[in-house]
Amino acid sequence: MPSSKPFAKWIQDNQAALIARLKEAVEIPSVSGDASYRKDVHRMGKWLQDELEKLGAEIRSVPMGPQDLDGQTIELPPVLVGSLGKDPKKKTILVYGHYDVQPALKSDGWKYEPFEFYEEKETGRLYGRGSTDDKGPIMGWLNVIEAHQKTNTELPVNLKFCFEGMEESGSEGLEELVVKEATGEFADVDAVCISDNYWLGTDTPALTYGLRGLAYFSVQISGPAADLHSGVFGNVVHEPMTDLFAIFSKLVTPQGKILVPGVNEMVAPLTEDERKLYEAINVTVADFESAIGGKVTISEDKAEVLMARMRYPSLSIHGIEGAFSAQGAKTVIPASVKGKFSIRLVPDQDPDRINELVQKYLKDEFEKLGSKSTLKVEMLSGGKPWVASIDHWNFRAAKKATETVWGKTPDFTREGGSIPITLTFAEALQKNVMLLPMGRYAFLLSTNEKIDTSNYILGSCTLGEYLHEAAAAAEESK
Amino acid sequence: MPSSKPFAKWIQDNQAALIARLKEAVEIPSVSGDASYRKDVHRMGKWLQDELEKLGAEIRSVPMGPQDLDGQTIELPPVLVGSLGKDPKKKTILVYGHYDVQPALKSDGWKYEPFEFYEEKETGRLYGRGSTDDKGPIMGWLNVIEAHQKTNTELPVNLKFCFEGMEESGSEGLEELVVKEATGEFADVDAVCISDNYWLGTDTPALTYGLRGLAYFSVQISGPAADLHSGVFGNVVHEPMTDLFAIFSKLVTPQGKILVPGVNEMVAPLTEDERKLYEAINVTVADFESAIGGKVTISEDKAEVLMARMRYPSLSIHGIEGAFSAQGAKTVIPASVKGKFSIRLVPDQDPDRINELVQKYLKDEFEKLGSKSTLKVEMLSGGKPWVASIDHWNFRAAKKATETVWGKTPDFTREGGSIPITLTFAEALQKNVMLLPMGRYAFLLSTNEKIDTSNYILGSCTLGEYLHEAAAAAEESK
Repeated sequence: MPSSKPFAKWIQDNQAALIARLKEAVEIPSVSGDASYRKDVHRMGKWLQDELEKLGAEIRSVPMGPQDLDGQTIELPPVLVGSLGKDPKKKTILVYGHYDVQPALKSDGWKYEPFEFYEEKETGRLYGRGSTDDKGPIMGWLNVIEAHQKTNTELPVNLKFCFEGMEESGSEGLEELVVKEATGEFADVDAVCISDNYWLGTDTPALTYGLRGLAYFSVQISGPAADLHSGVFGNVVHEPMTDLFAIFSKLVTPQGKILVPGVNEMVAPLTEDERKLYEAINVTVADFESAIGGKVTISEDKAEVLMARMRYPSLSIHGIEGAFSAQGAKTVIPASVKGKFSIRLVPDQDPDRINELVQKYLKDEFEKLGSKSTLKVEMLSGGKPWVASIDHWNFRAAKKATETVWGKTPDFTREGGSIPITLTFAEALQKNVMLLPMGRYAFLLSTNEKIDTSNYILGSCTLGEYLHEAAAAAEESK
Repeated sequence: MPSSKPFAKWIQDNQAALIARLKEAVEIPSVSGDASYRKDVHRMGKWLQDELEKLGAEIRSVPMGPQDLDGQTIELPPVLVGSLGKDPKKKTILVYGHYDVQPALKSDGWKYEPFEFYEEKETGRLYGRGSTDDKGPIMGWLNVIEAHQKTNTELPVNLKFCFEGMEESGSEGLEELVVKEATGEFADVDAVCISDNYWLGTDTPALTYGLRGLAYFSVQISGPAADLHSGVFGNVVHEPMTDLFAIFSKLVTPQGKILVPGVNEMVAPLTEDERKLYEAINVTVADFESAIGGKVTISEDKAEVLMARMRYPSLSIHGIEGAFSAQGAKTVIPASVKGKFSIRLVPDQDPDRINELVQKYLKDEFEKLGSKSTLKVEMLSGGKPWVASIDHWNFRAAKKATETVWGKTPDFTREGGSIPITLTFAEALQKNVMLLPMGRYAFLLSTNEKIDTSNYILGSCTLGEYLHEAAAAAEESK
């Protein structure tokens, strides 16, 4: 039994029109990572600006300058910054979303054309690139605003907008913009709501309060001046591949335990309350196995699996640049190779300190090999982990809204991945930031992206209900 | 002071014409590994057949059937099988060569167009793909025959020919042909001479009496059904890359010592006489360092370096198929990876026995990891090592010929690489096989392939002189 408020009834009574709005958005192929689609990203930005302005919002389209991509210099898509409502008696909620999408080709394994919206009547699923990530949620905000206007309901809060077009391609320039607007457009913001992730499973809504950070390393080992033939030089030279395998085998155990001294010691201790949160999450190890496509989880305890993903660091070896990587049998001794690995970081791990520990450890281990090759360790990127307080009125409001609309208490989750802008909002604005996902099922979304009609419609209701609860909860917490 | 025989004088007096012959051959781009050049490989085969027939040889062009390459079905180049001379009182020498070449593009780093023959007057070097490998040596045999005819000198032996056009691309079908002709065209052969390698350095001619064998392994470790995102699944699943690094780190030490139990135990013990051969070879560790382009040799003792290459096995890790191998930073957990490594084999190592040892060892080591991933170890190819007796008249003849032409005792060398057809000749014909190289400097021939004019001209003289010495030595050894 969802919300009984008039705006929510209107949303449910006008499904067809709201689905048509999503269709229009999905069918603009706003792929940010491919220069040949850049005009569509700009078209999508313009379309969204028009929609917001039609609803009375004041929007600035902020130009982000030029970019070199695929050998061309092209214009970055704008960030849409703006507001709706300036009532000093109301709280102000900043909503963030991104109007660009990941690449998609039918030949990647899609059932339907990824940029032709398809409503699968028998399942109620709405297929198309961006349906969940992240056009569905953005349409959700438009739906909420329109529903209030059509039912003559006053919006309970002021809204601020930050919609970007480069999220899938590094969010170029966004961090600087947010820092600048922290004392400008976003100065009066009381809390931030980001709808850009998913429920953990298929049954239970989620609110997300943490993300892991990342430290990505490239480890170059160099020996001969050029690749050598293993017949001619095998056993003659120190081989960089042998050295790389020797030191990378010292990074992490097959059970996922990181072996770099000092790294695990930085992890914040687990509290009893926190453990209970993981035990309460509505997911099973079998759900994970089904998503992974194999019985290869390290632990068979649900809470352990969840904590391994959400509140402990991980170390993954991704690959080697410069070695033989094709099919078949090539007898090369690669002259110089770059091994790549990354560590997902959790509080209180800091990428700069992690970098120091990794550098020292790998140099020490390499020294022990007695090889004449040379070693170079580089951190390619570093991002801090983020965790928000779930005791804040922002989370309480979203919890209550979810319970009203879905009749269920949401899972409180942390994500294993990184959305760097989340941390930027938290640090630049010094306000509570919350992730309120619209789509279900976090696993395997790269092909056949869809949103269930119920998630789209009830998810829109949840966003609206959240605004009402936020106004009330913020009032109470004064 | 080279050979004083009339044929040798004729070769030296007719350099320009013989260089023109090599130019003609080099400028046919007979690349066997690329379907778009296949017509040129056939053209080269026809050209060579015509040249041989003009000199009076009887040649059969043996069709080798169809081949699938680059998505097309194309005709394999023929093997030219034939003879010149059938005098039952003479010895019969089988000469082998290949008329195909490796791919080459100027953009790979060539000074000159690889398929435009270029005579660099100031250095006396003849540049072009195939100049040394292996068109120069084949032209050498044509030069020898023509020189005898032009000087009315009778050839001292009967010649048999086996010239193939697929050596750089797996010698498809050649082994079967040699086995078949062992009781046919090659039934009367007394010894085999292959001119398809190089001197070890730049100063001293070489005779090669051994080649290492090869056992090439692909080790597949599989976990999840598809690649996973390391943020979402890092620390949740057993990662195939972690497992692969763990077991591959147990294969070989950074000092080149193979750790697979039983493998080193199969190596024939070093004799005192044999060690003296290596100590006598005219090369320095600095020569190796200069070829390698770095001071990264495992040993700094010349004989140790040579033995490491020639008479001991080696194990090289070549790369990983299925992992991230591009530039940049991708946060993937590869679902299934194939690590590739190979072991160069020496007497008395046998690839089948090596396969058993490797399979058992890797399975045992993998078992110890306690991973839920699965392991599959496959030997992709196996070739036995080859060693010939240098006390045979075939080697004595070539040694004497080399001393006559070059005024130097040749290095007796073994090669680290593999030329599988060598072993086929030895086993199918049960005759002594010798490698008599024409070009100098074994190192780094992939780009800027050249032959020095002196090596081409005096090398041709050496081949002719060898035939005379073989006739004499075989007579003595009766």
